[in-house]
Amino acid sequence: MKTVITIGRQYGSGGHDIGKLVAQKLGFAFYDKKLVEIAAKNSNISDETVKHIDEKATSSLLYSLVSGSYSIRGMNGPLYYEMPLNDKLFIAQSDVIKEVASKEDCVIVGRCSDYVLDEIEDIKLINVFIYSPLESRINRITKLHELNEKQAKDKILKSDKQRKTYYSYYSNRDWGKMSNYDICINSGKIGIEESAEMIVNFIKGLNK
Amino acid sequence: MKTVITIGRQYGSGGHDIGKLVAQKLGFAFYDKKLVEIAAKNSNISDETVKHIDEKATSSLLYSLVSGSYSIRGMNGPLYYEMPLNDKLFIAQSDVIKEVASKEDCVIVGRCSDYVLDEIEDIKLINVFIYSPLESRINRITKLHELNEKQAKDKILKSDKQRKTYYSYYSNRDWGKMSNYDICINSGKIGIEESAEMIVNFIKGLNK
Repeated sequence: MKTVITIGRQYGSGGHDIGKLVAQKLGFAFYDKKLVEIAAKNSNISDETVKHIDEKATSSLLYSLVSGSYSIRGMNGPLYYEMPLNDKLFIAQSDVIKEVASKEDCVIVGRCSDYVLDEIEDIKLINVFIYSPLESRINRITKLHELNEKQAKDKILKSDKQRKTYYSYYSNRDWGKMSNYDICINSGKIGIEESAEMIVNFIKGLNK
Repeated sequence: MKTVITIGRQYGSGGHDIGKLVAQKLGFAFYDKKLVEIAAKNSNISDETVKHIDEKATSSLLYSLVSGSYSIRGMNGPLYYEMPLNDKLFIAQSDVIKEVASKEDCVIVGRCSDYVLDEIEDIKLINVFIYSPLESRINRITKLHELNEKQAKDKILKSDKQRKTYYSYYSNRDWGKMSNYDICINSGKIGIEESAEMIVNFIKGLNK
């Protein structure tokens, strides 16, 4: 039975790095943006398009019309619409998530993977959420992206809002709500290395 | 510098047992109801009274009148009121919490200890919250207290409501809200022993 660790994370919490460390230490496969690239290839969506829609929810009819994912035919044909690209990509990506989870021990960052794998049997699924006080995230992001505090704060709030919307849109659950996860860690207090270590030790105990 | 682990917990999650295990494994002191007993002794409140008010918030003027904690003098004296017993006990208990935290490595269960110790310097404070799906808690409580499922569910919901009210009344924070804690563990999924182990390993790493 494969062990799958999903990592939800606030922007700037270091959740991505923690996931990577956990995968390295356990010798697990690591999936993040890679998942979308595979999914896009499977559904013939271009890399350029993916950049704009990755981890974003279908926002509105207007947006979809502008982005060309709704097609309206008048006059000679019936009015119809095509599934928005974001939704197509989400479905393709969910298929990829299910496939990798059934084939190998892995760590998956974001992309509603906890929800997508919820009903899948025959895997050991551990859902982790990484959070951190805003101040500590601003500090991290200013250093990582050479932004000033105001810019970092804006980027954090915007990204978290997008993740929240994406997660609730596709899962109908609350993003970052404790009860959706098995382990939640304040990486700002616990530390990046130490958070990874905590998860690794638990998984090692599990597979003893 | 002393290490202090506070444990907030949903009723039936096994948080109390996890705290006890952590204290045993680390050789730390363990405080739960004991704190109130010390506080009550310090404030000359009887054991019988403590039973009724432990981890309950001052609920209303009416309750306080009935319980005798408000005294109203008419006629020959001015109208005045005395601090409700629950509040007196909370303050006395907070003093005890601060005292033990400064003197010894310890695990403290409940009693807003995370909030009480928030501003205290010179201690390493780790705030843990233990939760578990309702179903798994019902299962635990039916076994522990020989209750049927309906009784266990009622007891759980009532106790959680009391804890939530107590916590918000005294701390002005949301009970069980991820951002108030450093590590949150779903004991129903992770296991009682394993949850304790996770905390113990982290603390051992901290003190290396």
